[in-house]
Amino acid sequence: MNDLEIRPADSGDLPAIVAMLADDPLGAQRESPDDLSPYTAAFERLAGDSHQHLVVAVRDGRVVGTLQLTVVPGLSRRGSTRSIIEGVRIHADERGSGLGTQLIEWAIAESRRQNCQLVQLTSDATRTDAHRFYERLGFESSHLGFKMNL
Amino acid sequence: MNDLEIRPADSGDLPAIVAMLADDPLGAQRESPDDLSPYTAAFERLAGDSHQHLVVAVRDGRVVGTLQLTVVPGLSRRGSTRSIIEGVRIHADERGSGLGTQLIEWAIAESRRQNCQLVQLTSDATRTDAHRFYERLGFESSHLGFKMNL
Repeated sequence: MNDLEIRPADSGDLPAIVAMLADDPLGAQRESPDDLSPYTAAFERLAGDSHQHLVVAVRDGRVVGTLQLTVVPGLSRRGSTRSIIEGVRIHADERGSGLGTQLIEWAIAESRRQNCQLVQLTSDATRTDAHRFYERLGFESSHLGFKMNL
Repeated sequence: MNDLEIRPADSGDLPAIVAMLADDPLGAQRESPDDLSPYTAAFERLAGDSHQHLVVAVRDGRVVGTLQLTVVPGLSRRGSTRSIIEGVRIHADERGSGLGTQLIEWAIAESRRQNCQLVQLTSDATRTDAHRFYERLGFESSHLGFKMNL
């Protein structure tokens, strides 16, 4: 494997990111890789929010992974700032390569750099492999995650 | 019960908010109501982020509840914007009064107003009463929540 770069996503990365979002058992039902317009609009919203960090992992010029890190100030836990990881995807060709670990370790390091005291994420209850992965990396499955579609 | 107002928190509300954060089985171990300085600094960070909405519920001039709503743009689910509810606290005198429901319903309505397609939260696995409360309000406990202290 050649060197990996993790860098902020730009709009030219959108087709590759959306393809990864859709190439997933859950994502296949809720993404529309043939129509990028909602993603382009969302990318503009992300670019306009300095607390959002959408990154891609690139190897040999190809986008092979992505995640979104959100920095959230707050009052609880003595005014702790926390970060939230969302939208972690690894290209099918790279699964098992350690790229997921590298991406999450990047997110943890960036959270520290931004003075976060806590990093958190939710994972669909059906993604049992992902749960073991996060526990190996040192996360504690201490919470239940509740969602409501609007 | 008299009329309830839900409004953005201001810095004068901090002592009452911190007292509620600390008056909680988990919060008692991790808050410092006798030293407001970390909370004052965190309040400034919240005020500087237009995607943060820290609100208080006020009855008869007294702060009796609080929550924080964060609006998070994203690419997944066809570029959905989601909101995240954190730091929900109800004053001990008001528990069972329906105020929790009013606060969460406010957060749901505000999320819709801000064009969110999804509202989510995590709740400590030990807070079983809270889990039933969120399910009654229409949330689905579909995820596991992972956290790591930094």
